[in-house]
Amino acid sequence: MRPKIFLFGDSITEVSFAEGGWGASLANHFSRTIDLVLRGYSGYNTRWALKVLDKVFPATQNGGAGMNGAPVAITVFFGANDACLPDRYGAFQHVPLLEYKQNLHSIVSFFKKRCPTTHVLLITPPPIDEEARLRYPYADNPRGLPERTNEAAGEYARACIAVAEECGVPVIDLWSKMQQCLEWRDYLCDGLHLTKSGNRVVFEEVIMRLRDKGLSLESIPVDLPLIDNIDPNDPLKLFQ
Amino acid sequence: MRPKIFLFGDSITEVSFAEGGWGASLANHFSRTIDLVLRGYSGYNTRWALKVLDKVFPATQNGGAGMNGAPVAITVFFGANDACLPDRYGAFQHVPLLEYKQNLHSIVSFFKKRCPTTHVLLITPPPIDEEARLRYPYADNPRGLPERTNEAAGEYARACIAVAEECGVPVIDLWSKMQQCLEWRDYLCDGLHLTKSGNRVVFEEVIMRLRDKGLSLESIPVDLPLIDNIDPNDPLKLFQ
Repeated sequence: MRPKIFLFGDSITEVSFAEGGWGASLANHFSRTIDLVLRGYSGYNTRWALKVLDKVFPATQNGGAGMNGAPVAITVFFGANDACLPDRYGAFQHVPLLEYKQNLHSIVSFFKKRCPTTHVLLITPPPIDEEARLRYPYADNPRGLPERTNEAAGEYARACIAVAEECGVPVIDLWSKMQQCLEWRDYLCDGLHLTKSGNRVVFEEVIMRLRDKGLSLESIPVDLPLIDNIDPNDPLKLFQ
Repeated sequence: MRPKIFLFGDSITEVSFAEGGWGASLANHFSRTIDLVLRGYSGYNTRWALKVLDKVFPATQNGGAGMNGAPVAITVFFGANDACLPDRYGAFQHVPLLEYKQNLHSIVSFFKKRCPTTHVLLITPPPIDEEARLRYPYADNPRGLPERTNEAAGEYARACIAVAEECGVPVIDLWSKMQQCLEWRDYLCDGLHLTKSGNRVVFEEVIMRLRDKGLSLESIPVDLPLIDNIDPNDPLKLFQ
């Protein structure tokens, strides 16, 4: 049975199998070693995520079915919706900073309890390009103000990092990582979601963190003989 | 538990999660409804596939775990390697036409027995662009002859269609479908594997065949409330 990695998050996770997406890139990278399981829920914040956690990760799948069924890793990628400003059109998605932290804590604790061998990898929200958010509003926006700001996203990113430290789990500081590049706005297609280059950043960061935890092409057994290892003079030998 | 679709085949399946790949496109299309499980094995023919069938689809996963665990559909996409000519450098992958037919029969029978509710969807090998195969050889090719021909691929495609009819399962005649387009060579990047437009053809054909079997976005329940259905004035209502 192949190991599994679950991708749990909001729309940036849900659309991660679109062309050039970071989820599809992971599935392609691990095409003979690990199954990628997509659990992205557009628009969701940590408050809603907590409400559905037990449905998305039912006990029978892991504990009940024995630890064979537990994923080797889960990416937890929430915060972009929590960070919606409370006085703009995305207010119904807003979660106060302190509650966001508590919710993330609860999510990590849930996994530590349900599947203690699973590596939980937190990912902070990406930076926000406010001008692009005004050009691509998700709803009527008569006031002409962005529903998300980069400053607010940064606060949620720092909270996410704090939770990771408190829980002793790895974290990708996507908010900072992307802004190390002068042209970081090119990572975002609408000021929030990822372009191909933005997806590439997430893919590479996830690969690196998984490697830190011993999950890489070198360490995970390949599923069935590779064509390069099959003897052309006796192809069936490896299949006996 | 979300329904699953397995993609079982050779390299054209294994690389189907690369950029623009048909597997990733399926996963993206069904991002909130169905899990796509990649079981592509580069270079494999039906003879080798038969040898590993029981490992790739273990009894415990389906029968043993109850029919909840059985996939709703499996694509079976072999033949491109079986059709390697027996007197060229790909000879070790060659499987005689009659055996190819018998092997495909055995594979379909295996699934009918192990998971009788699963829809098995056969896919014929694609056409072969022989000139491109000479430009992109997979091994030393001093004789300068293509290891695959379009005519041979066509024979295996017709055998695959015959098996589908005999077994009463749907089939995508990719060999013919692609050649309905004058520019069909543009579907192939090296005369065998698929370009983005070639991947698009496979994706659309699979979607269509799944729809014929009642598997579509309209018929499969979405996993958890969609953001569009969440009441901004009472977001938690749908999560009670």
